[in-house]
Amino acid sequence: MRNLNEDTITQAVIASLGGCGDTRLRTVMTSLVQHLHSFARETRLTEAEWQAAIAFLTAVGHITDDKRQEFILLSDVLGLSTLVTAQNHAKPAGCTEATVFGPFYVEGSPEYAQFDDIANGASGEPCFVGGYVRALDGQAIANAQLEVWQADEDGHYDVQLAPEDDGTHAHRARGKLRTDANGRFAFRSILAEPYPIPHDGPVGALLDALGRHPWRPAHLHFMIEAPGYETLITHVFRDGDRYLDSDAVFGVRSTLVAQWVQHPPGTAPDGSQMDVPFYTLDYDFVLNPKGPGR
Amino acid sequence: MRNLNEDTITQAVIASLGGCGDTRLRTVMTSLVQHLHSFARETRLTEAEWQAAIAFLTAVGHITDDKRQEFILLSDVLGLSTLVTAQNHAKPAGCTEATVFGPFYVEGSPEYAQFDDIANGASGEPCFVGGYVRALDGQAIANAQLEVWQADEDGHYDVQLAPEDDGTHAHRARGKLRTDANGRFAFRSILAEPYPIPHDGPVGALLDALGRHPWRPAHLHFMIEAPGYETLITHVFRDGDRYLDSDAVFGVRSTLVAQWVQHPPGTAPDGSQMDVPFYTLDYDFVLNPKGPGR
Ligand SMILES: [Fe+2]
Ligand SMILES: [Fe+2]
Repeated sequence: MRNLNEDTITQAVIASLGGCGDTRLRTVMTSLVQHLHSFARETRLTEAEWQAAIAFLTAVGHITDDKRQEFILLSDVLGLSTLVTAQNHAKPAGCTEATVFGPFYVEGSPEYAQFDDIANGASGEPCFVGGYVRALDGQAIANAQLEVWQADEDGHYDVQLAPEDDGTHAHRARGKLRTDANGRFAFRSILAEPYPIPHDGPVGALLDALGRHPWRPAHLHFMIEAPGYETLITHVFRDGDRYLDSDAVFGVRSTLVAQWVQHPPGTAPDGSQMDVPFYTLDYDFVLNPKGPGR
Repeated sequence: MRNLNEDTITQAVIASLGGCGDTRLRTVMTSLVQHLHSFARETRLTEAEWQAAIAFLTAVGHITDDKRQEFILLSDVLGLSTLVTAQNHAKPAGCTEATVFGPFYVEGSPEYAQFDDIANGASGEPCFVGGYVRALDGQAIANAQLEVWQADEDGHYDVQLAPEDDGTHAHRARGKLRTDANGRFAFRSILAEPYPIPHDGPVGALLDALGRHPWRPAHLHFMIEAPGYETLITHVFRDGDRYLDSDAVFGVRSTLVAQWVQHPPGTAPDGSQMDVPFYTLDYDFVLNPKGPGR
Protein backbone atom coordinates (compact mmCIF):
# COMPACT_ATOMS: atom_id res chain seq x y z
CA MET A 1 0.00 0.00 0.00
CA ARG A 2 3.00 2.39 -0.05
CA ASN A 3 4.74 3.73 -3.11
CA LEU A 4 1.94 2.86 -5.47
CA ASN A 5 2.69 3.82 -9.05
CA GLU A 6 0.78 3.70 -12.28
CA ASP A 7 1.52 -0.01 -12.61
CA THR A 8 0.51 -1.04 -9.08
CA ILE A 9 -2.30 1.31 -8.04
CA THR A 10 -5.09 -0.62 -9.76
CA GLN A 11 -4.30 -3.88 -8.01
CA ALA A 12 -3.99 -2.06 -4.68
CA VAL A 13 -7.45 -0.49 -5.01
CA ILE A 14 -8.95 -3.84 -5.98
CA ALA A 15 -7.23 -5.49 -3.01
CA SER A 16 -8.79 -2.85 -0.74
CA LEU A 17 -12.22 -4.24 -1.71
CA GLY A 18 -11.37 -7.60 -0.13
CA GLY A 19 -13.48 -6.84 2.94
CA CYS A 20 -16.63 -6.04 0.99
CA GLY A 21 -19.37 -8.42 2.03
CA ASP A 22 -21.58 -7.65 -0.97
CA THR A 23 -20.26 -9.89 -3.73
CA ARG A 24 -22.08 -8.11 -6.52
CA LEU A 25 -20.93 -4.67 -5.36
CA ARG A 26 -17.35 -5.94 -5.18
CA THR A 27 -17.61 -7.33 -8.72
CA VAL A 28 -19.06 -4.09 -10.10
CA MET A 29 -16.55 -1.86 -8.31
CA THR A 30 -13.62 -4.06 -9.31
CA SER A 31 -14.64 -3.76 -12.95
CA LEU A 32 -15.25 -0.01 -12.57
CA VAL A 33 -11.81 0.59 -11.08
CA GLN A 34 -10.14 -1.49 -13.80
CA HIS A 35 -11.87 0.35 -16.63
CA LEU A 36 -11.57 3.79 -15.07
CA HIS A 37 -7.84 3.25 -14.57
CA SER A 38 -7.41 1.77 -18.05
CA PHE A 39 -9.06 4.89 -19.48
CA ALA A 40 -6.73 7.20 -17.52
CA ARG A 41 -3.66 5.15 -18.49
CA GLU A 42 -4.59 4.73 -22.15
CA THR A 43 -5.18 8.47 -22.59
CA ARG A 44 -2.34 9.39 -20.22
CA LEU A 45 -4.86 11.75 -18.69
CA THR A 46 -3.18 14.97 -17.54
CA GLU A 47 -3.83 16.72 -14.24
CA ALA A 48 -5.45 19.63 -16.09
CA GLU A 49 -7.81 17.19 -17.81
CA TRP A 50 -8.57 15.52 -14.48
CA GLN A 51 -9.37 18.95 -13.01
CA ALA A 52 -11.61 19.69 -16.01
CA ALA A 53 -13.43 16.38 -15.46
CA ILE A 54 -13.97 17.20 -11.75
CA ALA A 55 -15.31 20.64 -12.70
CA PHE A 56 -17.54 19.12 -15.40
CA LEU A 57 -19.06 16.53 -13.06
CA THR A 58 -19.54 19.22 -10.40
CA ALA A 59 -21.46 21.35 -12.91
CA VAL A 60 -23.56 18.33 -13.93
CA GLY A 61 -24.37 17.77 -10.25
CA HIS A 62 -25.20 21.39 -9.57
CA ILE A 63 -27.62 21.82 -12.48
CA THR A 64 -29.42 18.60 -11.50
CA ASP A 65 -32.53 19.07 -9.37
CA ASP A 66 -35.97 17.49 -9.10
CA LYS A 67 -36.91 18.94 -12.50
CA ARG A 68 -33.69 18.31 -14.39
CA GLN A 69 -31.51 15.20 -14.39
CA GLU A 70 -28.25 16.09 -16.14
CA PHE A 71 -26.54 12.80 -15.17
CA ILE A 72 -29.21 10.86 -17.09
CA LEU A 73 -28.70 13.24 -20.00
CA LEU A 74 -24.96 12.53 -19.83
CA SER A 75 -25.56 8.78 -19.74
CA ASP A 76 -27.93 9.17 -22.70
CA VAL A 77 -25.55 11.14 -24.94
CA LEU A 78 -22.70 8.73 -24.18
CA GLY A 79 -24.83 5.80 -25.31
CA LEU A 80 -24.65 4.19 -21.87
CA SER A 81 -28.43 4.32 -21.43
CA THR A 82 -29.03 2.54 -24.74
CA LEU A 83 -26.43 -0.09 -23.85
CA VAL A 84 -27.93 -0.77 -20.42
CA THR A 85 -31.44 -0.87 -21.88
CA ALA A 86 -30.39 -3.23 -24.66
CA GLN A 87 -28.56 -5.72 -22.49
CA ASN A 88 -31.43 -5.91 -19.99
CA HIS A 89 -34.21 -6.40 -22.51
CA ALA A 90 -33.42 -9.31 -24.71
CA LYS A 91 -36.95 -10.40 -25.56
CA PRO A 92 -38.72 -12.95 -27.68
CA ALA A 93 -39.44 -11.75 -31.23
CA GLY A 94 -42.80 -10.05 -31.41
CA CYS A 95 -42.50 -8.17 -28.13
CA THR A 96 -42.35 -4.39 -28.31
CA GLU A 97 -38.76 -3.21 -27.98
CA ALA A 98 -37.60 -1.01 -25.11
CA THR A 99 -35.64 2.20 -25.43
CA VAL A 100 -34.08 4.79 -23.14
CA PHE A 101 -35.94 6.18 -20.14
CA GLY A 102 -34.73 9.76 -20.62
CA PRO A 103 -34.59 12.54 -18.02
CA PHE A 104 -38.19 13.85 -18.19
CA TYR A 105 -40.21 11.22 -16.38
CA VAL A 106 -42.05 12.67 -13.37
CA GLU A 107 -43.63 10.71 -10.51
CA GLY A 108 -47.24 11.33 -9.63
CA SER A 109 -48.66 12.35 -12.99
CA PRO A 110 -52.47 12.55 -13.17
CA GLU A 111 -54.79 9.66 -13.99
CA TYR A 112 -57.02 9.98 -17.02
CA ALA A 113 -59.98 8.06 -18.42
CA GLN A 114 -60.40 6.71 -21.96
CA PHE A 115 -60.49 9.56 -24.55
CA ASP A 116 -59.40 12.23 -22.05
CA ASP A 117 -57.16 15.02 -23.29
CA ILE A 118 -53.85 14.62 -21.46
CA ALA A 119 -52.41 17.78 -23.05
CA ASN A 120 -53.97 19.77 -20.20
CA GLY A 121 -53.13 23.01 -21.95
CA ALA A 122 -49.81 22.05 -23.56
CA SER A 123 -49.52 23.73 -26.95
CA GLY A 124 -49.59 21.75 -30.16
CA GLU A 125 -51.74 20.37 -32.94
CA PRO A 126 -54.40 17.96 -31.68
CA CYS A 127 -53.49 14.30 -31.88
CA PHE A 128 -55.58 11.24 -31.02
CA VAL A 129 -53.60 8.21 -29.91
CA GLY A 130 -54.96 4.72 -29.56
CA GLY A 131 -54.04 1.06 -29.66
CA TYR A 132 -54.00 -2.25 -27.84
CA VAL A 133 -51.80 -3.79 -25.21
CA ARG A 134 -51.47 -7.49 -25.81
CA ALA A 135 -49.59 -10.60 -24.79
CA LEU A 136 -47.34 -12.47 -27.22
CA ASP A 137 -50.20 -14.83 -28.13
CA GLY A 138 -52.39 -11.87 -29.11
CA GLN A 139 -54.55 -11.96 -25.98
CA ALA A 140 -55.70 -8.56 -24.76
CA ILE A 141 -54.19 -7.31 -21.50
CA ALA A 142 -56.98 -5.56 -19.64
CA ASN A 143 -56.35 -2.90 -17.01
CA ALA A 144 -52.69 -2.42 -17.98
CA GLN A 145 -51.38 0.95 -16.80
CA LEU A 146 -49.88 3.20 -19.47
CA GLU A 147 -47.93 6.22 -18.44
CA VAL A 148 -47.37 8.71 -21.27
CA TRP A 149 -45.18 11.80 -21.45
CA GLN A 150 -44.18 14.08 -24.29
CA ALA A 151 -42.91 17.55 -25.20
CA ASP A 152 -45.09 20.37 -26.52
CA GLU A 153 -44.86 21.97 -29.97
CA ASP A 154 -41.91 24.09 -28.82
CA GLY A 155 -40.05 20.99 -27.74
CA HIS A 156 -40.48 21.53 -24.00
CA TYR A 157 -41.68 19.11 -21.37
CA ASP A 158 -43.88 20.65 -18.68
CA VAL A 159 -41.07 20.53 -16.13
CA GLN A 160 -38.93 22.72 -18.40
CA LEU A 161 -41.50 25.52 -18.43
CA ALA A 162 -41.74 28.32 -15.90
CA PRO A 163 -43.68 27.23 -12.79
CA GLU A 164 -47.24 28.36 -12.07
CA ASP A 165 -47.90 31.35 -9.84
CA ASP A 166 -47.93 29.08 -6.79
CA GLY A 167 -44.47 27.72 -7.69
CA THR A 168 -45.68 24.27 -8.74
CA HIS A 169 -45.56 22.73 -12.20
CA ALA A 170 -48.85 21.65 -13.77
CA HIS A 171 -48.67 18.22 -15.38
CA ARG A 172 -49.06 18.91 -19.08
CA ALA A 173 -48.90 16.32 -21.85
CA ARG A 174 -48.29 13.54 -19.36
CA GLY A 175 -50.57 11.18 -17.55
CA LYS A 176 -51.61 7.66 -16.58
CA LEU A 177 -54.25 5.62 -18.39
CA ARG A 178 -55.56 2.09 -18.25
CA THR A 179 -56.56 -0.32 -20.96
CA ASP A 180 -60.18 -1.43 -21.03
CA ALA A 181 -61.45 -5.01 -20.97
CA ASN A 182 -60.38 -5.43 -24.61
CA GLY A 183 -56.84 -4.19 -23.91
CA ARG A 184 -57.65 -0.94 -25.68
CA PHE A 185 -56.34 2.49 -24.72
CA ALA A 186 -57.17 5.86 -26.28
CA PHE A 187 -56.37 9.43 -25.38
CA ARG A 188 -56.10 12.86 -26.89
CA SER A 189 -52.87 14.82 -26.74
CA ILE A 190 -50.76 16.94 -29.09
CA LEU A 191 -48.56 16.20 -32.07
CA ALA A 192 -45.04 15.04 -31.13
CA GLU A 193 -42.33 17.29 -32.56
CA PRO A 194 -38.53 16.95 -32.64
CA TYR A 195 -36.74 18.76 -29.83
CA PRO A 196 -33.20 19.43 -28.66
CA ILE A 197 -32.27 17.88 -25.32
CA PRO A 198 -31.58 20.65 -22.77
CA HIS A 199 -28.32 22.07 -24.03
CA ASP A 200 -27.83 25.16 -21.91
CA GLY A 201 -25.89 23.13 -19.31
CA PRO A 202 -22.64 21.16 -19.15
CA VAL A 203 -23.92 18.28 -21.31
CA GLY A 204 -24.93 20.78 -24.02
CA ALA A 205 -21.46 22.33 -23.82
CA LEU A 206 -19.94 18.86 -24.19
CA LEU A 207 -22.06 18.06 -27.25
CA ASP A 208 -21.02 21.40 -28.72
CA ALA A 209 -17.33 20.70 -28.11
CA LEU A 210 -17.81 17.26 -29.69
CA GLY A 211 -19.39 18.75 -32.82
CA ARG A 212 -22.69 16.96 -32.10
CA HIS A 213 -26.22 18.35 -32.33
CA PRO A 214 -28.66 17.96 -29.41
CA TRP A 215 -31.77 16.98 -31.41
CA ARG A 216 -34.06 14.04 -30.89
CA PRO A 217 -36.62 12.85 -33.44
CA ALA A 218 -40.26 13.42 -32.45
CA HIS A 219 -41.53 10.75 -30.05
CA LEU A 220 -44.00 9.82 -27.34
CA HIS A 221 -42.74 8.17 -24.15
CA PHE A 222 -44.59 5.16 -22.77
CA MET A 223 -44.16 3.13 -19.62
CA ILE A 224 -46.54 0.18 -19.52
CA GLU A 225 -47.09 -1.99 -16.47
CA ALA A 226 -49.29 -5.06 -16.02
CA PRO A 227 -49.12 -7.85 -13.43
CA GLY A 228 -47.17 -10.84 -14.75
CA TYR A 229 -45.38 -8.83 -17.45
CA GLU A 230 -42.04 -7.09 -17.62
CA THR A 231 -42.51 -3.33 -17.39
CA LEU A 232 -42.02 -1.82 -20.84
CA ILE A 233 -40.26 1.56 -21.05
CA THR A 234 -40.18 2.78 -24.62
CA HIS A 235 -40.95 5.51 -27.15
CA VAL A 236 -42.98 5.63 -30.35
CA PHE A 237 -41.10 7.67 -32.97
CA ARG A 238 -42.69 9.70 -35.74
CA ASP A 239 -41.92 8.41 -39.20
CA GLY A 240 -40.29 10.91 -41.57
CA ASP A 241 -38.55 12.88 -38.82
CA ARG A 242 -35.23 14.28 -40.02
CA TYR A 243 -33.43 13.16 -36.83
CA LEU A 244 -34.38 9.47 -36.93
CA ASP A 245 -30.86 8.62 -38.05
CA SER A 246 -28.99 10.99 -35.77
CA ASP A 247 -30.86 10.84 -32.45
CA ALA A 248 -28.66 12.59 -29.88
CA VAL A 249 -29.30 9.75 -27.42
CA PHE A 250 -29.10 6.77 -29.80
CA GLY A 251 -32.60 5.53 -28.95
CA VAL A 252 -34.31 4.90 -32.32
CA ARG A 253 -35.50 1.38 -33.21
CA SER A 254 -37.19 0.71 -36.55
CA THR A 255 -39.99 -1.25 -34.90
CA LEU A 256 -40.86 1.80 -32.79
CA VAL A 257 -41.28 4.14 -35.78
CA ALA A 258 -44.93 4.77 -36.63
CA GLN A 259 -47.13 6.92 -38.86
CA TRP A 260 -48.84 9.97 -37.47
CA VAL A 261 -51.69 10.48 -39.95
CA GLN A 262 -52.99 13.99 -40.66
CA HIS A 263 -56.75 14.49 -41.09
CA PRO A 264 -58.81 17.47 -42.28
CA PRO A 265 -61.37 19.00 -39.89
CA GLY A 266 -64.14 16.49 -39.15
CA THR A 267 -65.02 13.68 -36.76
CA ALA A 268 -62.21 12.64 -34.44
CA PRO A 269 -61.71 9.09 -33.07
CA ASP A 270 -63.40 10.12 -29.80
CA GLY A 271 -66.50 11.15 -31.78
CA SER A 272 -65.97 14.87 -31.32
CA GLN A 273 -66.22 17.32 -34.22
CA MET A 274 -62.87 18.97 -34.92
CA ASP A 275 -62.91 22.30 -36.75
CA VAL A 276 -59.13 22.19 -37.23
CA PRO A 277 -56.92 19.53 -38.80
CA PHE A 278 -55.81 16.80 -36.41
CA TYR A 279 -53.51 13.80 -36.30
CA THR A 280 -54.02 10.20 -35.31
CA LEU A 281 -51.52 7.62 -34.17
CA ASP A 282 -52.39 3.95 -33.82
CA TYR A 283 -49.83 1.76 -32.16
CA ASP A 284 -50.10 -1.59 -30.38
CA PHE A 285 -47.80 -2.84 -27.65
CA VAL A 286 -46.85 -6.44 -26.92
CA LEU A 287 -45.58 -7.16 -23.42
CA ASN A 288 -43.01 -9.76 -22.45
CA PRO A 289 -44.16 -12.20 -19.73
CA LYS A 290 -42.12 -12.01 -16.55
CA GLY A 291 -39.62 -14.80 -16.30
CA PRO A 292 -38.80 -16.57 -13.04
CA GLY A 293 -37.24 -14.15 -10.58
CA ARG A 294 -37.99 -11.04 -12.63
CA MET B 1 -27.82 4.83 -36.11
CA ARG B 2 -31.08 2.86 -35.79
CA ASN B 3 -31.55 -0.40 -33.96
CA LEU B 4 -28.35 -0.10 -31.98
CA ASN B 5 -27.80 -3.03 -29.68
CA GLU B 6 -25.21 -3.92 -27.10
CA ASP B 7 -22.81 -4.99 -29.85
CA THR B 8 -23.17 -1.90 -32.07
CA ILE B 9 -23.85 1.03 -29.72
CA THR B 10 -20.21 1.66 -28.83
CA GLN B 11 -19.09 2.05 -32.43
CA ALA B 12 -22.09 4.30 -33.15
CA VAL B 13 -21.22 6.66 -30.30
CA ILE B 14 -17.59 6.79 -31.40
CA ALA B 15 -18.69 7.50 -34.98
CA SER B 16 -20.80 10.41 -33.68
CA LEU B 17 -17.55 12.06 -32.54
CA GLY B 18 -16.31 12.28 -36.13
CA GLY B 19 -17.15 15.98 -36.36
CA CYS B 20 -15.18 16.93 -33.27
CA GLY B 21 -12.50 19.44 -34.24
CA ASP B 22 -10.51 18.99 -31.02
CA THR B 23 -8.33 15.94 -31.65
CA ARG B 24 -7.35 15.45 -28.04
CA LEU B 25 -10.95 15.71 -26.82
CA ARG B 26 -12.01 13.18 -29.43
CA THR B 27 -9.26 10.80 -28.33
CA VAL B 28 -10.17 11.14 -24.65
CA MET B 29 -13.92 10.77 -25.23
CA THR B 30 -13.44 7.79 -27.56
CA SER B 31 -11.44 6.02 -24.87
CA LEU B 32 -13.96 7.03 -22.19
CA VAL B 33 -16.89 5.65 -24.18
CA GLN B 34 -15.04 2.40 -24.89
CA HIS B 35 -14.13 1.83 -21.26
CA LEU B 36 -17.48 2.97 -19.86
CA HIS B 37 -19.29 0.60 -22.21
CA SER B 38 -16.86 -2.24 -21.52
CA PHE B 39 -17.55 -1.80 -17.81
CA ALA B 40 -21.33 -1.92 -18.35
CA ARG B 41 -21.05 -4.96 -20.64
CA GLU B 42 -18.57 -6.85 -18.48
CA THR B 43 -20.72 -6.44 -15.38
CA ARG B 44 -23.99 -6.75 -17.34
CA LEU B 45 -25.04 -3.69 -15.38
CA THR B 46 -28.74 -3.82 -14.56
CA GLU B 47 -31.18 -0.93 -14.85
CA ALA B 48 -31.56 -0.83 -11.07
CA GLU B 49 -27.77 -0.54 -10.74
CA TRP B 50 -27.71 2.18 -13.39
CA GLN B 51 -30.42 4.05 -11.44
CA ALA B 52 -28.38 3.64 -8.26
CA ALA B 53 -25.32 5.05 -10.03
CA ILE B 54 -27.31 8.07 -11.26
CA ALA B 55 -28.63 8.65 -7.73
CA PHE B 56 -25.12 8.24 -6.27
CA LEU B 57 -23.55 10.75 -8.67
CA THR B 58 -26.43 13.17 -8.05
CA ALA B 59 -25.79 12.95 -4.30
CA VAL B 60 -22.05 13.50 -4.88
CA GLY B 61 -22.91 16.59 -6.91
CA HIS B 62 -25.37 17.95 -4.40
CA ILE B 63 -23.07 17.69 -1.38
CA THR B 64 -20.27 19.39 -3.33
CA ASP B 65 -19.92 23.14 -2.76
CA ASP B 66 -17.11 25.66 -2.44
CA LYS B 67 -16.10 24.07 0.89
CA ARG B 68 -16.48 20.40 0.02
CA GLN B 69 -15.41 18.58 -3.14
CA GLU B 70 -16.97 15.12 -3.04
CA PHE B 71 -15.96 14.30 -6.66
CA ILE B 72 -12.28 14.73 -5.73
CA LEU B 73 -12.93 12.53 -2.70
CA LEU B 74 -14.47 9.92 -5.01
CA SER B 75 -11.51 10.09 -7.39
CA ASP B 76 -9.19 9.77 -4.38
CA VAL B 77 -10.82 6.68 -2.87
CA LEU B 78 -10.95 4.96 -6.28
CA GLY B 79 -7.20 5.47 -6.71
CA LEU B 80 -7.72 7.60 -9.81
CA SER B 81 -6.04 10.61 -8.22
CA THR B 82 -2.93 8.59 -7.35
CA LEU B 83 -2.82 7.14 -10.87
CA VAL B 84 -3.12 10.54 -12.55
CA THR B 85 -0.53 12.02 -10.19
CA ALA B 86 1.88 9.15 -10.77
CA GLN B 87 1.69 9.16 -14.56
CA ASN B 88 2.22 12.91 -14.75
CA HIS B 89 5.18 13.12 -12.41
CA ALA B 90 7.85 10.77 -13.57
CA LYS B 91 10.89 12.60 -12.19
CA PRO B 92 14.61 12.18 -11.98
CA ALA B 93 15.77 10.31 -8.86
CA GLY B 94 16.41 12.72 -6.03
CA CYS B 95 13.39 14.94 -6.67
CA THR B 96 10.68 15.02 -4.03
CA GLU B 97 7.80 12.79 -5.03
CA ALA B 98 4.30 14.14 -5.64
CA THR B 99 1.12 12.79 -4.13
CA VAL B 100 -2.61 13.48 -4.34
CA PHE B 101 -3.99 17.02 -4.16
CA GLY B 102 -6.96 16.10 -1.96
CA PRO B 103 -10.21 18.04 -1.55
CA PHE B 104 -9.17 20.60 1.11
CA TYR B 105 -7.07 23.08 -0.80
CA VAL B 106 -8.50 26.61 -0.61
CA GLU B 107 -7.58 29.56 -2.82
CA GLY B 108 -6.51 32.81 -1.22
CA SER B 109 -4.98 31.55 2.01
CA PRO B 110 -3.01 34.16 4.00
CA GLU B 111 0.65 34.99 3.53
CA TYR B 112 2.99 34.49 6.44
CA ALA B 113 6.56 35.48 7.26
CA GLN B 114 9.35 33.21 8.48
CA PHE B 115 8.56 31.70 11.93
CA ASP B 116 4.93 32.89 11.89
CA ASP B 117 2.31 30.65 13.48
CA ILE B 118 0.02 29.55 10.66
CA ALA B 119 -2.27 27.67 13.07
CA ASN B 120 -4.18 30.93 13.58
CA GLY B 121 -6.14 29.38 16.41
CA ALA B 122 -6.46 25.79 15.10
CA SER B 123 -6.27 23.39 18.03
CA GLY B 124 -3.35 21.03 18.46
CA GLU B 125 0.04 20.52 20.04
CA PRO B 126 2.59 23.09 18.89
CA CYS B 127 4.82 22.01 16.04
CA PHE B 128 7.71 23.84 14.40
CA VAL B 129 8.34 22.95 10.80
CA GLY B 130 11.41 23.89 8.80
CA GLY B 131 13.58 22.86 5.89
CA TYR B 132 15.09 23.84 2.58
CA VAL B 133 13.83 23.96 -0.96
CA ARG B 134 16.59 23.00 -3.37
CA ALA B 135 17.35 22.12 -6.95
CA LEU B 136 18.61 18.68 -7.91
CA ASP B 137 22.22 19.88 -7.71
CA GLY B 138 21.72 21.01 -4.11
CA GLN B 139 21.49 24.73 -4.93
CA ALA B 140 19.09 26.67 -2.72
CA ILE B 141 15.93 27.95 -4.37
CA ALA B 142 15.29 31.39 -2.90
CA ASN B 143 11.84 32.98 -2.81
CA ALA B 144 10.01 29.73 -3.63
CA GLN B 145 6.38 29.89 -2.55
CA LEU B 146 5.20 27.16 -0.20
CA GLU B 147 1.53 26.73 0.44
CA VAL B 148 0.75 24.57 3.47
CA TRP B 149 -2.54 23.12 4.70
CA GLN B 150 -3.39 20.63 7.42
CA ALA B 151 -6.12 19.37 9.73
CA ASP B 152 -6.38 20.24 13.43
CA GLU B 153 -6.06 17.82 16.35
CA ASP B 154 -9.67 16.69 15.81
CA GLY B 155 -8.94 15.86 12.19
CA HIS B 156 -10.80 18.81 10.70
CA TYR B 157 -9.63 21.30 8.12
CA ASP B 158 -10.80 24.86 8.72
CA VAL B 159 -13.39 24.62 5.93
CA GLN B 160 -15.01 21.69 7.72
CA LEU B 161 -15.66 23.72 10.87
CA ALA B 162 -18.72 25.89 11.51
CA PRO B 163 -18.33 29.31 9.90
CA GLU B 164 -17.59 32.47 11.92
CA ASP B 165 -20.42 34.74 13.07
CA ASP B 166 -20.17 36.66 9.79
CA GLY B 167 -20.60 33.48 7.76
CA THR B 168 -17.01 33.32 6.51
CA HIS B 169 -14.39 30.72 7.33
CA ALA B 170 -11.18 31.90 8.97
CA HIS B 171 -8.07 30.38 7.41
CA ARG B 172 -6.67 28.13 10.11
CA ALA B 173 -3.63 25.88 9.79
CA ARG B 174 -3.11 26.94 6.20
CA GLY B 175 -1.03 29.65 4.58
CA LYS B 176 1.60 30.77 2.11
CA LEU B 177 5.28 31.22 2.92
CA ARG B 178 8.43 31.95 0.98
CA THR B 179 11.92 30.59 1.26
CA ASP B 180 14.67 33.03 2.22
CA ALA B 181 17.86 33.69 0.27
CA ASN B 182 19.26 30.36 1.51
CA GLY B 183 16.18 28.42 0.35
CA ARG B 184 15.09 28.04 3.97
CA PHE B 185 11.51 28.05 5.22
CA ALA B 186 10.25 27.85 8.79
CA PHE B 187 6.85 28.16 10.39
CA ARG B 188 4.95 27.23 13.48
CA SER B 189 1.78 25.16 13.27
CA ILE B 190 0.23 22.22 15.07
CA LEU B 191 0.97 18.52 15.21
CA ALA B 192 -0.49 16.58 12.26
CA GLU B 193 -2.88 13.84 13.35
CA PRO B 194 -4.59 11.04 11.42
CA TYR B 195 -8.12 11.85 10.28
CA PRO B 196 -11.00 10.21 8.47
CA ILE B 197 -11.92 11.74 5.12
CA PRO B 198 -15.42 13.25 5.30
CA HIS B 199 -17.59 10.16 5.51
CA ASP B 200 -21.03 11.54 6.24
CA GLY B 201 -21.78 11.80 2.51
CA PRO B 202 -22.16 9.42 -0.46
CA VAL B 203 -18.43 8.61 -0.67
CA GLY B 204 -18.46 7.65 3.02
CA ALA B 205 -21.49 5.43 2.41
CA LEU B 206 -19.64 3.82 -0.50
CA LEU B 207 -16.55 3.14 1.62
CA ASP B 208 -18.80 1.65 4.27
CA ALA B 209 -20.54 -0.63 1.74
CA LEU B 210 -17.10 -1.64 0.44
CA GLY B 211 -15.89 -2.57 3.93
CA ARG B 212 -13.19 0.11 3.81
CA HIS B 213 -12.23 2.58 6.54
CA PRO B 214 -12.00 6.33 5.78
CA TRP B 215 -8.74 7.07 7.64
CA ARG B 216 -5.68 8.82 6.35
CA PRO B 217 -2.31 8.79 8.12
CA ALA B 218 -1.25 12.13 9.66
CA HIS B 219 0.23 14.48 7.07
CA LEU B 220 0.96 18.05 6.07
CA HIS B 221 0.02 19.22 2.56
CA PHE B 222 2.52 21.26 0.57
CA MET B 223 2.28 22.96 -2.80
CA ILE B 224 5.62 24.51 -3.79
CA GLU B 225 6.06 26.84 -6.74
CA ALA B 226 9.23 28.46 -8.09
CA PRO B 227 9.94 29.90 -11.55
CA GLY B 228 11.66 27.36 -13.79
CA TYR B 229 10.48 24.37 -11.72
CA GLU B 230 7.55 22.00 -11.96
CA THR B 231 5.00 22.81 -9.26
CA LEU B 232 5.24 20.20 -6.52
CA ILE B 233 2.00 19.06 -4.87
CA THR B 234 2.74 16.63 -2.10
CA HIS B 235 2.34 15.65 1.56
CA VAL B 236 4.79 14.89 4.34
CA PHE B 237 3.52 11.89 6.34
CA ARG B 238 4.19 11.25 10.02
CA ASP B 239 6.28 8.20 10.69
CA GLY B 240 4.74 5.60 12.99
CA ASP B 241 1.15 6.41 12.03
CA ARG B 242 -1.06 3.34 12.12
CA TYR B 243 -2.65 4.18 8.75
CA LEU B 244 0.52 4.49 6.69
CA ASP B 245 -0.20 1.12 5.09
CA SER B 246 -3.94 1.58 4.61
CA ASP B 247 -4.35 5.20 3.52
CA ALA B 248 -7.95 5.57 2.31
CA VAL B 249 -6.71 7.52 -0.71
CA PHE B 250 -3.58 5.45 -1.58
CA GLY B 251 -1.23 8.44 -1.28
CA VAL B 252 1.66 7.28 0.93
CA ARG B 253 5.20 7.22 -0.46
CA SER B 254 8.12 6.03 1.70
CA THR B 255 10.24 9.02 0.71
CA LEU B 256 7.54 11.36 2.06
CA VAL B 257 7.44 9.77 5.53
CA ALA B 258 9.31 11.84 8.12
CA GLN B 259 9.94 12.03 11.85
CA TRP B 260 8.02 14.46 14.00
CA VAL B 261 10.33 14.80 17.05
CA GLN B 262 8.81 15.51 20.46
CA HIS B 263 10.61 17.94 22.78
CA PRO B 264 10.10 18.82 26.45
CA PRO B 265 9.29 22.43 27.37
CA GLY B 266 12.22 24.72 26.50
CA THR B 267 13.62 26.75 23.62
CA ALA B 268 11.80 26.30 20.32
CA PRO B 269 13.43 26.60 16.86
CA ASP B 270 12.10 30.16 16.55
CA GLY B 271 13.91 31.09 19.77
CA SER B 272 10.75 31.32 21.85
CA GLN B 273 10.45 29.67 25.27
CA MET B 274 7.81 26.95 25.28
CA ASP B 275 6.28 25.99 28.63
CA VAL B 276 4.59 22.95 27.08
CA PRO B 277 6.04 20.08 25.10
CA PHE B 278 6.33 20.71 21.37
CA TYR B 279 7.21 18.90 18.17
CA THR B 280 9.63 19.66 15.36
CA LEU B 281 9.62 18.45 11.79
CA ASP B 282 12.54 19.03 9.45
CA TYR B 283 11.99 18.19 5.82
CA ASP B 284 13.72 19.33 2.65
CA PHE B 285 12.14 19.49 -0.80
CA VAL B 286 13.91 19.03 -4.13
CA LEU B 287 12.15 20.49 -7.17
CA ASN B 288 12.20 19.13 -10.69
CA PRO B 289 13.29 21.63 -13.36
CA LYS B 290 10.62 22.40 -15.92
CA GLY B 291 11.17 20.54 -19.15
CA PRO B 292 10.52 22.04 -22.56
CA GLY B 293 6.85 22.86 -22.98
CA ARG B 294 5.94 22.27 -19.34
FE1 LIG C 1 -38.33 12.66 -24.81
FE1 LIG D 1 -5.21 15.98 4.01
